[in-house]
Amino acid sequence: MSDTQLLICGKNFKQEERDRLSAAFPAAFVDGPADIAALDAGLRASLRAVAFKGHTAFGAETMDLLPQLGLIANYGVGYDAIDVTAASARGVKVTNTPDVLSDDVADLAVALLIAQARTMIRGHAHAASGRWATEGEIPLNRKVSGSTVGIVGLGRIGREIADRLAAFKMDIHYTSRSEKETPGWTYHADVVSLAKAVDFLVIALVGGPETKGHVSRAAIEALGPRGVVVNISRGSTIDEGALLDALEAGTIAGAGLDVFENEPNLDPRFLKLDNVVLQPHQGSGTVETRTAMAVLQLDNVAAFLEGRDLLTPVN
Amino acid sequence: MSDTQLLICGKNFKQEERDRLSAAFPAAFVDGPADIAALDAGLRASLRAVAFKGHTAFGAETMDLLPQLGLIANYGVGYDAIDVTAASARGVKVTNTPDVLSDDVADLAVALLIAQARTMIRGHAHAASGRWATEGEIPLNRKVSGSTVGIVGLGRIGREIADRLAAFKMDIHYTSRSEKETPGWTYHADVVSLAKAVDFLVIALVGGPETKGHVSRAAIEALGPRGVVVNISRGSTIDEGALLDALEAGTIAGAGLDVFENEPNLDPRFLKLDNVVLQPHQGSGTVETRTAMAVLQLDNVAAFLEGRDLLTPVN
Repeated sequence: MSDTQLLICGKNFKQEERDRLSAAFPAAFVDGPADIAALDAGLRASLRAVAFKGHTAFGAETMDLLPQLGLIANYGVGYDAIDVTAASARGVKVTNTPDVLSDDVADLAVALLIAQARTMIRGHAHAASGRWATEGEIPLNRKVSGSTVGIVGLGRIGREIADRLAAFKMDIHYTSRSEKETPGWTYHADVVSLAKAVDFLVIALVGGPETKGHVSRAAIEALGPRGVVVNISRGSTIDEGALLDALEAGTIAGAGLDVFENEPNLDPRFLKLDNVVLQPHQGSGTVETRTAMAVLQLDNVAAFLEGRDLLTPVN
Repeated sequence: MSDTQLLICGKNFKQEERDRLSAAFPAAFVDGPADIAALDAGLRASLRAVAFKGHTAFGAETMDLLPQLGLIANYGVGYDAIDVTAASARGVKVTNTPDVLSDDVADLAVALLIAQARTMIRGHAHAASGRWATEGEIPLNRKVSGSTVGIVGLGRIGREIADRLAAFKMDIHYTSRSEKETPGWTYHADVVSLAKAVDFLVIALVGGPETKGHVSRAAIEALGPRGVVVNISRGSTIDEGALLDALEAGTIAGAGLDVFENEPNLDPRFLKLDNVVLQPHQGSGTVETRTAMAVLQLDNVAAFLEGRDLLTPVN
């Protein structure tokens, strides 16, 4: 039997993040949940906490490989890769890293929206290539301020996005599980009604099975030919095939996307579009925020292993 | 002697803008001020108003070619191409198109700032090329919300920018000719002091000789290695050589620029940088705003030719 109580699970951990965790507690490391079965049985029997980073499934079978498991501490606010129901059934707590990343994700959402409407990718290529001098101006594009935006999911991140867009004099509409207290924003009970009412539709849902395909083909159709989709949540929250159909056919105006269904392997149809701004799931990808997320994950691990209250439990 | 009282001057007028002006008043057309001398003397003697669009100089000698000239109606808020002193000396009124474009320019300024900090040009290229799948994630970048911004020139546009950035929880500092009433923003008497205090420096000055090189080499140096310049005003307002030196040497972090000294002929040094987001002077370049600008220009022309008060005189 080993003394090692912590497993660092995720090949995307930066070296300094692994070092920070290992400095606090003796730790083993695996690339992902699929590699846990191959660990020495004595080590598996000693592991009490997993520091997890990634988007591959962490399910019941994996949990059952770790008989002493008491905590899965997720790096990120979205823990849809972890089967929380299975964890709860086994008395395993799950934590995430909310709040510390909301600002960054909201910043990127706003910039995706403006960059799409103002054709900034094209603008940059035009200026940076020298074509501005030889070919003249780019076509006029589209005003953002004063338009109408629909926020799909007015949680922590959705609220941050709405607060920012309100400063652009935008008329804020939203959906959420129930009507919220807002400064006069317009609640819609369903996403089709929301999409029909707005110019820009910004998706800020949690991921997971409950929200899979929530922004449906019908919602995308309701958005109409001037409509723009912005998604900074999870690729799963929108019917991606319907989105691609609409972008290709021009039945909506465009999209600004940080997340995709099979990321990082994007549907190749995305790569041929000129009405999109694409980002490589970097919503929380700043030095400042990733450090804050890593520290919060470690603080949850430490709280658990040292018998204190968890900071940000989700179950 | 001709009956034509209006001259449309500027090769960048869109056809629909020319049509709108010509439908209101019989009009002659030239590509720019340099072509006025070649007009028939009878026509020149009948012209009372010029609808002007462009950045080439409209000076005293040009005005003297039009003995009945009473109005130069500029398309755009910045009228630095027009010698207003010479106009005033001749009893010629000048109008511009303020306010209607402030929102658009502020929107672009905010998006330039975020796009630079969050390396969105790189991010888009990474995702849209398929390199995300083969090469993994992009490097972490930089948090915007909560940082400190300095607005150089708290006029109409500067104020719109500050109002938006306040919603990103940014600490707002500014310079202007005098201290203004603000919600607790920090006034600096000079631009070097401002640059020293902030992460992001956003230039929102008017153009013209008085502000030429206002953001000096010393100010750029004071900004320091984490500093980012955003310029949506005029290329002339910053020491462009000093800016290029700093961007090349990494003595500042980067820039987001919509305006350049010799636009559209950019200094080729700009085209080699990877720490900039460049736009082809499209701050007001939306369908909605350009229409509003054209209508306001026409309204000024109509007010003058029909003997009513000008809407937006500048002298």
